[in-house]
Amino acid sequence: MQTDATTDEFSGMPIEQLSIQTIRTLAIDAIQAANSGHPGAPMALAPVAYLLSRQMRYNPRNPNWFDRDRFVLSAGHASMLLYAMLHLSGYNLSLEELKQFRQLGSMTPGHPETGHTPGVETTTGPLGQGLMNAVGMAMAEAHLGAVFNRPDHRIVDHFTYVICSDGDLMEGASHEAASLAGHLGLAKLIVVYDDNRITIEGSTDLAWSDNIPARFQSSGWHVQDLGDAANDLPALAASLETARAADDRPSLIVVRSHIGFGSPHKQDSASAHGSPLGVEEVILTKRAYGWPEDKNFYVPDSVREHMKEAVEKGDLQELEWRNRMDAYRESHPELAERLEASIAGTPPEGWAGTLPTFEPSADGLATRAASGKALQVAAEQIPWLLGGSADLSPSNNSALPFSGDFARGAWASRNVHWGIREHVMCSAANGMALHGGVRPYVATFLIFTDYARPAIRLAALMAQPVIYIMTHDSIGLGEDGPTHQPIEHLASLRSIPDLVVIRPADANETAEAWAVAIERTDGPTLLALTRQKVPTMVRPADVGGVARGGYIVAGAEDSEPDIILIATGSEVSVALEARLQLAEGGTEARVVSMPSWELFRAQGQAYKDSILAPSVPARIAIEAGVEMGWHEWIGDEGSFIGMTGFGASAPAPQLFEHFGITADAIVREAQRLLSD
Amino acid sequence: MQTDATTDEFSGMPIEQLSIQTIRTLAIDAIQAANSGHPGAPMALAPVAYLLSRQMRYNPRNPNWFDRDRFVLSAGHASMLLYAMLHLSGYNLSLEELKQFRQLGSMTPGHPETGHTPGVETTTGPLGQGLMNAVGMAMAEAHLGAVFNRPDHRIVDHFTYVICSDGDLMEGASHEAASLAGHLGLAKLIVVYDDNRITIEGSTDLAWSDNIPARFQSSGWHVQDLGDAANDLPALAASLETARAADDRPSLIVVRSHIGFGSPHKQDSASAHGSPLGVEEVILTKRAYGWPEDKNFYVPDSVREHMKEAVEKGDLQELEWRNRMDAYRESHPELAERLEASIAGTPPEGWAGTLPTFEPSADGLATRAASGKALQVAAEQIPWLLGGSADLSPSNNSALPFSGDFARGAWASRNVHWGIREHVMCSAANGMALHGGVRPYVATFLIFTDYARPAIRLAALMAQPVIYIMTHDSIGLGEDGPTHQPIEHLASLRSIPDLVVIRPADANETAEAWAVAIERTDGPTLLALTRQKVPTMVRPADVGGVARGGYIVAGAEDSEPDIILIATGSEVSVALEARLQLAEGGTEARVVSMPSWELFRAQGQAYKDSILAPSVPARIAIEAGVEMGWHEWIGDEGSFIGMTGFGASAPAPQLFEHFGITADAIVREAQRLLSD
Repeated sequence: MQTDATTDEFSGMPIEQLSIQTIRTLAIDAIQAANSGHPGAPMALAPVAYLLSRQMRYNPRNPNWFDRDRFVLSAGHASMLLYAMLHLSGYNLSLEELKQFRQLGSMTPGHPETGHTPGVETTTGPLGQGLMNAVGMAMAEAHLGAVFNRPDHRIVDHFTYVICSDGDLMEGASHEAASLAGHLGLAKLIVVYDDNRITIEGSTDLAWSDNIPARFQSSGWHVQDLGDAANDLPALAASLETARAADDRPSLIVVRSHIGFGSPHKQDSASAHGSPLGVEEVILTKRAYGWPEDKNFYVPDSVREHMKEAVEKGDLQELEWRNRMDAYRESHPELAERLEASIAGTPPEGWAGTLPTFEPSADGLATRAASGKALQVAAEQIPWLLGGSADLSPSNNSALPFSGDFARGAWASRNVHWGIREHVMCSAANGMALHGGVRPYVATFLIFTDYARPAIRLAALMAQPVIYIMTHDSIGLGEDGPTHQPIEHLASLRSIPDLVVIRPADANETAEAWAVAIERTDGPTLLALTRQKVPTMVRPADVGGVARGGYIVAGAEDSEPDIILIATGSEVSVALEARLQLAEGGTEARVVSMPSWELFRAQGQAYKDSILAPSVPARIAIEAGVEMGWHEWIGDEGSFIGMTGFGASAPAPQLFEHFGITADAIVREAQRLLSD
Repeated sequence: MQTDATTDEFSGMPIEQLSIQTIRTLAIDAIQAANSGHPGAPMALAPVAYLLSRQMRYNPRNPNWFDRDRFVLSAGHASMLLYAMLHLSGYNLSLEELKQFRQLGSMTPGHPETGHTPGVETTTGPLGQGLMNAVGMAMAEAHLGAVFNRPDHRIVDHFTYVICSDGDLMEGASHEAASLAGHLGLAKLIVVYDDNRITIEGSTDLAWSDNIPARFQSSGWHVQDLGDAANDLPALAASLETARAADDRPSLIVVRSHIGFGSPHKQDSASAHGSPLGVEEVILTKRAYGWPEDKNFYVPDSVREHMKEAVEKGDLQELEWRNRMDAYRESHPELAERLEASIAGTPPEGWAGTLPTFEPSADGLATRAASGKALQVAAEQIPWLLGGSADLSPSNNSALPFSGDFARGAWASRNVHWGIREHVMCSAANGMALHGGVRPYVATFLIFTDYARPAIRLAALMAQPVIYIMTHDSIGLGEDGPTHQPIEHLASLRSIPDLVVIRPADANETAEAWAVAIERTDGPTLLALTRQKVPTMVRPADVGGVARGGYIVAGAEDSEPDIILIATGSEVSVALEARLQLAEGGTEARVVSMPSWELFRAQGQAYKDSILAPSVPARIAIEAGVEMGWHEWIGDEGSFIGMTGFGASAPAPQLFEHFGITADAIVREAQRLLSD
């Protein structure tokens, strides 16, 4: 073993150990400087992180090298562990940034944020998410490998490594992740479980007694229980080797660790979890590490040199891969081109022109059915589009009949059966999008977005272009009743920043919504679709209203109406019916379809005023959901017709009647408004 | 075995079998009549349901008998199984109601709804919820038994039975339920798992390969795998007996069943899951059952008589319990009184008078800290109040220092350690509230309501008085960053019908919020609380503003202000600061604290107008969250100061500055509004 050549202050400490102590003390110092953070896990896990940094394939100078191994710190609160590694391994993350840990504008926020810090593969912190993201990354890798690799050409071939915590494994999310990964046999997923037995309230014994190895084995994982080995580099190295060799199932490595390792007064205690050690304890801990007590943010030269080997190594690894890519391009030019297009992710020029259009029809089509037709076209044009439903594909119209089932050994197929696991569905989709080379869509009933909300929020926060096909979007689903009828969901989803929610009114709007969703590659898009049939309207002359979020479907733009009816989805046709009735009484109503508030808000004021004429204060919004937020569009003098509470179980037409979402009700309210 | 005495059409079919076929055909006929529903599971599980109806302790004439066994149909889509049982067992649910299955106004909605149909213990349908509710029921039973039972007096002593499905066990929720129940050793929880291997997309093999017995064993459950025994009454009966005898852990009974049992063309197929069998298949299936093909909703007299034995039996069981209660009251009058008070659930007269009040202070107190103090008082006054946090009690200030840890064998203690399992926390709290005799509270960070949203929604739908202590309610939590900072959560929670959200401005408002929460026994109440200190304001003369949802904290009611500043929580003190600055420039601002939109909406128009003077269109709302919904209060000419996107990682004061939520910003916006 090499010893520190530049200083003698460490009395022959091996370079591995010296590197590990550097990681630990960088974390301790950054958290102490911030007076905020979680030192315990970085102190405990530095050896694991060190080993991974030596073993993983990545290029610090090109964090986006496509065939790199992915690393996910599911225990995101241990962010300083990751930042210390990234800094030492030569990523573009300076020591100065580490000193700015948790400060405004720094590259080192409290929890790791992808897109913000080079080398951070996903945004973690909400527990369970990283593990679920990693399942999606491993799915993407398996898919792309199956599609593109050829006997003599392994072009997509990398591992996804995860460090997860007790908290991750308590969350139900972890069960969904484990169950799905085990079922699919995602052998290139390797999870190190930091079994430190401490959470914020104290010992995990207070709340938890799962047998973790048995639990993961029951889901089909390869499990190694290393015991108290968090500082045993040879044992850790051997377990990673064994995990990589287990080629028919994902791997869990259970490592008993000691939170706050080395801290004389805080090791193995909850007090090491979420607070700085404190100035005195920092000194005592550094002393225990054999570290100079008076130096902060100290990186010995020998460690700097040793860890930076990752740069040269990574350059060589990427170069070697690029050479392989060249040979592949030679042998399989079409495949190579397709892979590159998949990685770029830009939809083929003119693809949207092939989307279906639908003839006007009073009988019409459910928007979920129209969505199914649009999806087929999109998926034919965009071979990297794949996804599926949480066991509702016949109801969500989300299957691709021309492809098979994405399954163990059949990873090239594009129909993912997520099972009744909405949370991992949405979170793994985030992981797929982050991985790149695939474009994920997911599907379930709109009501069940509630089961996946943390993941939907993270898609928005991470600006990942996941497409959500959410059907059965109102009381229009009928007999399944209030447990299945979304009431507040449009409002609650619209409240998530950077999520685009689109509720198309008919078949043609649905096809347009798909065009918007596919073209939106910098954030998630959610389609809210009907179970029931809705009339297919006459298409307006200026197609593209959906992309603008709102437009006039009836009532001339150049004549000022008496009243404006604003509706979304299935209620647009109700508004159109009301308009005809009002016309009989001599009242001129304009009907505005407003499928997407977010897209409409993004238009210029002139366009918005041309649709919602400011001179017309009489407005009624009609939507089979709660009123929340509609005041923005109807103004002080407007009215809302929709739901004021939960739904009920009955055939859909009776429910619209029962809850007063009818043309008659609109007409009555219009008359009331105009007579005031 | 007794044979049918009243007809000879069944050629000696034993009464058990006859009863089972009656259950099956009632379900088939009701679903066919509704042309909607899920016949497959009732057909498969009728023998299990029949056995439970014979073995369970309950009184059809008094569905609320406190010491009854609880039955939870977690697979809520199999509702007709439950309705058929309730009807046959003598509950107040007529055959006519069964014929109105899934029709408007009937007592037989698509999924079971508690409070709507006698004998339905909880509202199910969203998968995993029933199982989690049942964990809460068993926790309540364990707690009350430990508190009230005495060596010679077993007053609280009943089982909680669950039927759950593949779908329940795929959901991550089921892991949280199993893990918690196993940890706590809830021996009186007995779950029958309907292993039918079919979901909507087809065979469960498409998505799932968990070893369920091993999985539950890894969480500490007693597991019996009966194999293909869904029609084997002796085996089923023996397994229930064994499960009841396993007195140190919860029990899982795995029963391989056949969805759509007896249907010649649909048994074991996904087509039996969610659609009526169809007229022809109904006939063929009845033929296979040895049932008269031409009779619908047919209950043979012998079955009617046999099943109705439950009525007399239940009366006797309750009577016997009432006698035991009398003896208990004799021996332990104080305990008996306390038990009755617990069951009634009415807070002791005058309890709220003991809530703490806080002196005005510029330095102030975090509202989470004030909440902790109020909780202590409430819990001292209301001994049936119990709960805890999802591993954040030191942060949520949610522990009761005078009680111990609710744990295996220490169920009388009141501090529940939910573990990092927000979903089962909230859903089990629903079960506890439904069980009665306890009043549950739960706690975590506001952001993590996203992990439990389906359960929070169901608390509202079921009108259960769960109290949510949700701290760290804005960017004011600081360095943990955007993954932990709620932005859209106030809006998204306010959008849930019948949930009361309260965001108190200071310590005194927090105490008032606790008074409201405790007094609200017909629905859930959520407290959104700060991590950071907020000034304690001078208390207004008319205490009780929180109960009214909004009130004036500064600026006389009888003088018309130039502008109204409306704020909630930590932003009220910012508004007060702005008011002082505005006053220096000669602008009179009224500051309204509006801790609860729902409570304010419920006030009369006169009160509302006295607070938000209609004659004052210049209004600014200030809240460190999204704007969604605020237009209702600020009107067309008002402004909003808050968040427009996700937060960031930095110390809290810098974040408020960075995002422009400051007194200066309010003053500037007020000047702009007033100069327009």
